[in-house]
Parts: sequence; structure tokens; C-alpha cells
Amino acid sequence: MNGAESLVRTLHGAGVDVCFANPGTSEMQFVDALDRTRLMRCVLGLFEGVVTGAADGYARMAGKPAVTLLHLAPGLANAGANMHNARKARSPMLNLVGDHAVRHLAYDAPLTADVAGAATPFSDWVRTATSAATIARDAAEGLAAAAGHPGRIATLIAPADIGWEEGGVIAEPVAPQGPRPLDAAVLDRAAALLQPGTLIFCGGSVLEDPATLALLAGIAAKTGADFLAPTSNRRIERGAGRSDIGRLPYPVDLALERLAPYSRAILIEAPAPVAFFAYPDRPSLLLPPGCETLQLADFDQDGCAAIAALAEAVGARPAAAADRPRPQAPQAGPITLPALGAAIAAALPEAAIVVDEGVTSGRDIGTASAGSPPHSWLALTGGSIGIGLPMAAGAAIACPDRPVVSLQADGSAMYTIQALWTQAREGLNVTTVIFANRSYEILKQELYRVGANPGPDALNMLDLSRPDLDFVALARGMGVPGRRVEDAAELCRAIADAIAEPGPFLIEAML
Amino acid sequence: MNGAESLVRTLHGAGVDVCFANPGTSEMQFVDALDRTRLMRCVLGLFEGVVTGAADGYARMAGKPAVTLLHLAPGLANAGANMHNARKARSPMLNLVGDHAVRHLAYDAPLTADVAGAATPFSDWVRTATSAATIARDAAEGLAAAAGHPGRIATLIAPADIGWEEGGVIAEPVAPQGPRPLDAAVLDRAAALLQPGTLIFCGGSVLEDPATLALLAGIAAKTGADFLAPTSNRRIERGAGRSDIGRLPYPVDLALERLAPYSRAILIEAPAPVAFFAYPDRPSLLLPPGCETLQLADFDQDGCAAIAALAEAVGARPAAAADRPRPQAPQAGPITLPALGAAIAAALPEAAIVVDEGVTSGRDIGTASAGSPPHSWLALTGGSIGIGLPMAAGAAIACPDRPVVSLQADGSAMYTIQALWTQAREGLNVTTVIFANRSYEILKQELYRVGANPGPDALNMLDLSRPDLDFVALARGMGVPGRRVEDAAELCRAIADAIAEPGPFLIEAML
Repeated sequence: MNGAESLVRTLHGAGVDVCFANPGTSEMQFVDALDRTRLMRCVLGLFEGVVTGAADGYARMAGKPAVTLLHLAPGLANAGANMHNARKARSPMLNLVGDHAVRHLAYDAPLTADVAGAATPFSDWVRTATSAATIARDAAEGLAAAAGHPGRIATLIAPADIGWEEGGVIAEPVAPQGPRPLDAAVLDRAAALLQPGTLIFCGGSVLEDPATLALLAGIAAKTGADFLAPTSNRRIERGAGRSDIGRLPYPVDLALERLAPYSRAILIEAPAPVAFFAYPDRPSLLLPPGCETLQLADFDQDGCAAIAALAEAVGARPAAAADRPRPQAPQAGPITLPALGAAIAAALPEAAIVVDEGVTSGRDIGTASAGSPPHSWLALTGGSIGIGLPMAAGAAIACPDRPVVSLQADGSAMYTIQALWTQAREGLNVTTVIFANRSYEILKQELYRVGANPGPDALNMLDLSRPDLDFVALARGMGVPGRRVEDAAELCRAIADAIAEPGPFLIEAML
Repeated sequence: MNGAESLVRTLHGAGVDVCFANPGTSEMQFVDALDRTRLMRCVLGLFEGVVTGAADGYARMAGKPAVTLLHLAPGLANAGANMHNARKARSPMLNLVGDHAVRHLAYDAPLTADVAGAATPFSDWVRTATSAATIARDAAEGLAAAAGHPGRIATLIAPADIGWEEGGVIAEPVAPQGPRPLDAAVLDRAAALLQPGTLIFCGGSVLEDPATLALLAGIAAKTGADFLAPTSNRRIERGAGRSDIGRLPYPVDLALERLAPYSRAILIEAPAPVAFFAYPDRPSLLLPPGCETLQLADFDQDGCAAIAALAEAVGARPAAAADRPRPQAPQAGPITLPALGAAIAAALPEAAIVVDEGVTSGRDIGTASAGSPPHSWLALTGGSIGIGLPMAAGAAIACPDRPVVSLQADGSAMYTIQALWTQAREGLNVTTVIFANRSYEILKQELYRVGANPGPDALNMLDLSRPDLDFVALARGMGVPGRRVEDAAELCRAIADAIAEPGPFLIEAML
């Protein structure tokens, strides 16, 4: 057995059964091993950012890592932005990256570059395999590093010869590290802080467990403390019958206003809230000066256990979810932002997976859909636009029986538009709604903060018209049917229809 | 004057008048400075790989760097693959990358990551600006580092506050380092090696100067030595009336066969020829064992001067170019690879710029077009597919009066397909010919080297059908008109027509 086959068999033995791939020549022995063993579903992306974005979506919904297969340093660089987003989500991911055969690295071949250097900024764990006999063990350890609490980005670099050489040895699975225990004294202090004027700021696994969210609401009801989630999160389980959790607004002034009332903050699987960007006249940290801040559970601790312990300490019980009305379809008329939110909220079916890269146009849809049937909400966690379409593909592969609704800003969609082809090839039930405002609207808002009166050169760099993008044509070019919609009521029907049909569909909503 | 404006004014003073950009919030003060000063043509790319690929194409044709404007570590990662290609081409490039304000870096904001770490694998020069007073000087030094001999990739990281703070000081231009002098003793030894059985292997600036290529042919005629260029090069000036230079074949066996006759090799602005990839049963270095190899001019030396000195030493004069027949248009019929080459060769007009990312289907077009009117030939130098469409855009911006013909493999086109939009927005006269064989054909060939009998999973990862890509629809989606062609004679006419019309056009050639 060669090194490549030992690696594939080891990963499969540890539970990996999907490989998102964009391989090159230096990975052909892994392609061959995947082919001969037939142990994994192999999903091709036409660009590496599709591969890692899909792997993130898969991991968020499957609760375990897929493996990605990437090609040398430039291919890894192409994958980097969505590795970054996954890393900020604390999603588990194991990247397998080929490199030249060891003897070949001495020469300046055209594709020679520093693979480990390219991996390091976007990985928590990087290792280069050194022999066919040990590469499977490396993979098992990389998988364990990825699959711990929190999830991590592990990158294993595999020189070609180590894949093709004989002497591979299948390795036993390695148990991932569980969460670090909570500190009892910190718990006591946190419980003592629970009172009006205290904010419980929590993310990560807390948001994925409806029972914990109900308990959190119970703590709030019992103590008068408030609770809030970060702006963007790996996954929130929400919708009718579930406790809803608000999210910190993105715009810095709104965020400051939202946090102004608090003099105490308890952090659970979340950092102290920080502005997305710095501004000359605004603070970086968003809690009011002097706010007492306590990290009850860090990313490597169990936030759900922390909330359970808090509830026990104060004698809180799960709160019943508020009775929220089912969202109503919008009236016929232009697709204003409120109408956009209403259309999506009304169209969401039971068990939908919502992928949110709506950016400016999508900001109010979360509020609008709080009463939609229960659904999962996956967001852009690392701020690097271009994960929505791939993440939708990966989520659909993880959950073939659940419809995926992909809320997608137009500018952001163009970074990884190639993901539509993967959606078509794999026949995924993804309904993409493009929010076509034809600009980098978020940057226009930021520019007006910097210069009072931007001129044509600046606006030119933030404008996506001239020529207008035609997303229906782009989708058709990759085998995804679609249509353009200009009316809000029609949009709601179009989304519902597309969800009901199998396979991908794209709706370009003209804002 | 703030730091951003001092930087823009300094770069403009040193000759930079184009900025390829994909900015984000942390670059808004640079966008604002570009807007207020109006000193540079700002060209927006919808993805960062478009930005750096275009910058490379621009530099190859303008002979000087543009500046790129990129956003934080993930944006830089997206730019990395084409920085890699440009670096292997020794093209000059200055990347300006924003980072968070210095005080903001202490917090784990969503977009925080190691910008310098992401820059290093794909840059020759990396610096982080430290004050508004010195950022312009940093930029002048970065530009000089980029614009030396050879060209280099320089990356200047600009924290947002250093751009927005007052106190910017315009810096004087810094002279780039010229080539390191040749070694007289090495020149003597090289001249003594010139005889039958000797190969002059030369790249870089040698290929850009028709007079030097004529002198090279004269040396060969006088001494019996042969000459050859690397497989892929920054730019070759070629065509009717010019000395033609062969290129080393890509497939390793053909390359070995081509180099087998030589017992002596003189290297000029080229490394000893090395296989693109390593294979279990093939050498990495391609010259025959025992071949005496002499580096007459390294990348940092002047290859043209080396050839002039060799000619003088042996008393050679420029050779007249062979009289090559003007290529004839192919007969009507299917677009076989020979017909493809003939169609392109016959359609090429005077002064065309050919961008070659044709990969397997394009291999014979160079030979077919040796008798086409004089033209420039730009190739994929770093092996990382996805530079063709952007490079064509950048070349067209550098040379607005010359038609650009972009020879583009279908699989490779999908990595940076967004470049078509930039071609449309800027109204560039680029004729893209997509070689639609609907597979990663090069990888299929490599796979057959690894596994004798690939199964469906492997072929699935190398196949681009199911669904077929429709490049005409993709182009239309980005404002570029196009058509599909299935006949060789029609293809030739379609290319000639598209070149004659201003603005971009895409032809999907069905192979």
C-alpha cells in the first residue's frame, strides 16, 4: 500500500467520507487512491476557494470535518480566504496539500514555492509529511487537531513521493481533545454578576443548541440580565418555537449604542465585542469604558456547560419561546429591503439551512425570519467575502434532505461564482437569491466616513454597474437555471417554488 | 497631507499611473487619495487574482510596474497565485495591502490575520509601514525593489491609521538596482564552449529583444551551437522577420528527448532546465548526466549584454530571419488541434499581443504562428493556472493600440473568469478564444502516468462536463459579447472579426 492509500483509508476509518477537491499533478496519487478505494464522495470545485468554502459549510452542518485536496502553494493561497473564514468560525477542516517530491524541491521548478508558509497564516496546525510509513499517522493527528473543541484548521502537506512510495501504514483514529474544564471560581463570579445591566455575550456551540438557548432565555428572565450573540456566527439554530437571540449590529455606531447600557459582561465562547474595523474617532472595543468583563468560557471551553451551570446557580429553567407570528408574504411592489426580508422569511420552509452572505442588503432578514419555521443560519464569520455560494454547496452535501437558501450579495458572489457549477454537478437543492444592488454598498458607506464628497474615481471602484452583471446568464453558463425578479410578491413565490424543486436554482432579486 | 496621499503622489512621481484595485474598508483612505489626486487610472477587479494577473500583464507590456491595492490577509491570499506567476516571470509588481489600524490588531477582529505572513511566500520584498511620515519613502523603496533587474514582487503593508494620519511626506524616486555585471572569466569560458553539441538556454530579457535574438541566431550559425528558451516565458518578441526561438516541450519525456543531444549548456537568465513536476522514474534535472553547465548570466545579470559579448568573442553578426510562410487559414472542418493552431496563426494581425494559457490544447500554436506578423507572446510562467484572462486585460491597458488575443484553456479560465467583467468595463480590445475540451486534459495525461486504469471517481475529478460550461453565457453575464464556433475555417474568420472590432469578445472554440 502506498502512502496515499494509507492516508485515505486512515481518514475514512476516522469518519471522513467526503473529499472536496481541486487537485493538480502533485496530487495524482491521492486522486488515484480515492478512486481505487471508493471510500469517499469526491466533490470537485473549479477554484480552490470553492473547495474550502464548501468544506466549511459541510463541517458546520455535519459537525465533523471533510478533507480538502489542494495543489501546492498557489492553490493553497486560493483556498486561504475561506480557510480564514472557517478558522474564525472555529469550524473543523483538514486540508491535504500536495507538494513537489522532496528531491524536486532543490530546483526552482515553476510551481515551487513555500507551501508551509502559505498555510501558516490560515491554519492552526501545519505539518509536512516525511515518509510513506508515517503520513497516515500525520493525517490522523491532523484530523484530531481539526475536530477538537473548538474546531481548528489543520493543514497536512504531502510531498508527491511520500504519496506514491510503498510502505504506507493505516493509523488508528486519534481522539480529538475535548473542551478544557470550566473554572468553578469564575462560574461563581459570573453567577454573582447576573442582574439587570449585565450582558451575556455568547457564540460558538451555544448558538447551535436550542435547549441551551432556551436555558439562556430562562436565566435572563430570572435575573434581568440580557444576552446577545456576535454579529456573524458559525451556526444559529433559530425560528418558530425556539428562543431567539439577537446579534450585535455590524455598523460601529449601532453596535456602540446597543452595548451602551451594560456595566457588566459575561463572555461565553466569544471574545469581547470588537469593531469589524478601526475608525479614527471610534474605539476598537465596543463595551462601554469601565464595563466589568468576565470570560466565563473561552473558545476551548464548553459554552453549553457554562450556561447549564449558570442556570443551576441561579435556579433558572428553560424559558418557553415567545410566540412569534409566522412571517407574511410581502405585497406586490418594488423589492425594498423590508420587502426582501419579508419575502425570504415567508418563503422559508421547515428545516431550511440559510446561508447568509447578504452583507448590507441582508441585515434585517434575521429579524424578519425569527418566526419562520425552525432553521439553521450560517453566516460569514471571517469577513472575507466569497464564502456564501460554496458554503451553501457544502451544507447541502452534509444535509441532502434539507433545502438550502443562499442569501447572497452580488459583489460578494463574484469572488467564488464558480461554486454554482459544483451545485449543478452535484444536483444540490440550493436556492440562491442574489441581492442585486450593483455596488459594493458596504464600501460606499465606509467611504462616506472617510471623504465627505467622493468623486468619480472612488465611486468607480465601488460600483458594479457598467456593465451590469447578469447573474441569470452566469448561472446558466454553469448549468444552474435561474430567473430575474423585480417584484417582492413574485420573489416570495419564486423562492418557494425553487425550494420545492430539486436541484439548484438562482434568483436575481433586483433591488 | 495624510499618509495615503503622500504615497499616491510619490508613486506617481516615480512613474506609476495605473492602479489595479480590489479595495476594502481598510483601504478607503487610499481610495480617497486616488480619487482626490486623480493621478492614476484605477481599474477594478472583482476578485484579487484578477488584480495581480492584470498587473503582471501590464508590467510585461509596459516594462514598468503598476500598483495593486488589496485588502488584508485574505484578499492578499486571493491575489497570491498570480503574484506567484509574476514572481516566476520576474515581472515587477508593487502591492499595497491594507491592514487594520495598529491599535486594532490587538483584538481578534473578524478580519485580523497575519498579512506579512500571507505576503511572504509570494513576495521578494515585504515591509510594513510604520508612520505617515515614512510610508511614502517605503513605497518609493518598494517600487525600486520591484523595478530592478530582474523584476521583483514587492508588497507594502499599510495599516489603516498610517494612511489616514496627517504628516505624509512625498518621497523622491529611488533608482532601481541595475543588473549585476557579467564575469569576464565566465564569458571567456562560455565563448570557448560554443560549438556543436552546446546548447544556449536563455530566457528573461533576451526573449524580449529581437536584435538580441538575431544575434543569438548568428552565434548559432557561426559556431554550430543550438539555442532554446524555457517552456514558458514572460514575453517573447516573435513572428515574421524575426529570429524564432524554440521552447523546451512541457511533457517530461519530450523535454528529455529534446535535450539529450547536448554535452554542454550555457545558461542565460534561465535556470538549468528542470521538469515541471517530479515523477518516480524520471530525473528532475533534464540536461543529460555529465552535461557541462555554465551559468553565464543569472536572473540579476543582463542576458542581452551576455549575448552581445559572446557574439563579439566569436565574431558573429545578426542572422537574417528565415523566410517563413504566412500561415494559411484552415479548411472547413472540425477544430482539431492542428486546425486550431492554423486558425489562430492565420488570424493574428500585426502587433498582436498573444496571451497563452492554452495548456494542452495550445501546445502547437507557437510553432504554427512563427510566420504570423510580428507579435508579443506572454505565457503562464509559474504554472498556477488562472492568469490568462486577467493578464490579457492588463496587457491591453498597457498597450491600448494593440489587439490582444487571449488563448485560454477552459479549465484554467474558470479560476479568474471575473476578469471578463474588467475587460468589458474598460472597453479593452481583447479577443478571448476558449479551448473547450471540457476537461482538465493535462491532469488526465498525468493520471494515466500514475494509475493504469482510472475509474469513475478519478475521471470525475478531471472532467468539466456534467454540466457543460457555457462560456458564451458566462461572458454575456459579465457584459462581454461572444459566440460558439465548431468549424475551423469559421473560427479563423471569427477571430479576425473580433480583433477588428473594438472592445472585448469571447469565442468558445469547441474542440
